[in-house]
Amino acid sequence: MLKLHCAPNTIAVAAIVALNEGVHWEPVRLDFTKADQTTPDYLALNPKGRVPTLITPEGPLTETGAILEYIGDTAVPKLVPADPLQRARMREVMYYLGTTMHVNHAHKMRGPRWANEQSSFDDMRAKVPETMAASCAYLEPQITGPYLFGAEPTLSDCYLYAISTWLEGDGVDVTAYPKLLAGRQVMETRPSVQKARADGFIG
Amino acid sequence: MLKLHCAPNTIAVAAIVALNEGVHWEPVRLDFTKADQTTPDYLALNPKGRVPTLITPEGPLTETGAILEYIGDTAVPKLVPADPLQRARMREVMYYLGTTMHVNHAHKMRGPRWANEQSSFDDMRAKVPETMAASCAYLEPQITGPYLFGAEPTLSDCYLYAISTWLEGDGVDVTAYPKLLAGRQVMETRPSVQKARADGFIG
Repeated sequence: MLKLHCAPNTIAVAAIVALNEGVHWEPVRLDFTKADQTTPDYLALNPKGRVPTLITPEGPLTETGAILEYIGDTAVPKLVPADPLQRARMREVMYYLGTTMHVNHAHKMRGPRWANEQSSFDDMRAKVPETMAASCAYLEPQITGPYLFGAEPTLSDCYLYAISTWLEGDGVDVTAYPKLLAGRQVMETRPSVQKARADGFIG
Repeated sequence: MLKLHCAPNTIAVAAIVALNEGVHWEPVRLDFTKADQTTPDYLALNPKGRVPTLITPEGPLTETGAILEYIGDTAVPKLVPADPLQRARMREVMYYLGTTMHVNHAHKMRGPRWANEQSSFDDMRAKVPETMAASCAYLEPQITGPYLFGAEPTLSDCYLYAISTWLEGDGVDVTAYPKLLAGRQVMETRPSVQKARADGFIG
């Protein structure tokens, strides 16, 4: 059975929701308050010391986008569009979320990744409401509704859902982005998200 | 014919090399010194004001990782492994390059994306040699050789090649990463990279 090393309210929620859409899997819960992600045992699986890590039959796999693609490729094909251009559109959003929106969010708490001075960390943190709002503004007109690409969710909806749960905490007025908010709400009607919440991974 | 909006020595080189591996395509050259990427015409294609943008028969596509996948999916299948786990490994590297290594590099010149003070920009810039070296150290043991995953290149080699051309400029001692350096050198023997260089996109 697939195992996912994960922690609540992190980007691992994207993989948790995608797995819940159609796979029997087992969570391995990391407690970030105990720095579980920095133990030698975990670093042997994922030298980056982050979550999620998926344990496949062929070994550990990291990077949320790659894990989502693997889930779509091997276990939950309904989350991947059949048309090449639609797959490309899905991936365009996924790469935007990974390379830009998640990175914007990370500047709130993870400044030491990119700078050394407390004044820089404070400066970065102060800008997060602006950069996260800009990411919402970029995404909003692209959302067909109710999901990103219409009537059914894709891998990109699992990814966006996880990030969308951070918006209030990042100081974004979500009511300014009605399609994004409606997409989050429709995801929350799905058993996959409801199970993730009941299992303590969201909220 | 596919068109790619691109600029020399940017991450667009990844897409240029992948296209050169098997597609007839046409470049649309942007001059960053004239801020071509911020013109209304370009922002209509790519509201993010970055490169590359691929013009597909169905419209513009952005995000390097998504463009590479589209090229593999529709035009140059030899760059995508047939095995799902090998595809996942390729994507694990691609997402790492997009979400971490390219982001590390961007802190040299693009500090205003994430902070407001000159002192923060200076602090970020000073850390780039350290973060880029850490990215090289993470990748080095994963390289099978000569390419990332053995005897033939994948999309991830095109992506890594583009970033690897920045290393000396980012203050990294590349001789500390012999497999990464050998991978860059073997890419430079390929007609795809040689054409990109002859066309003025590298160097």
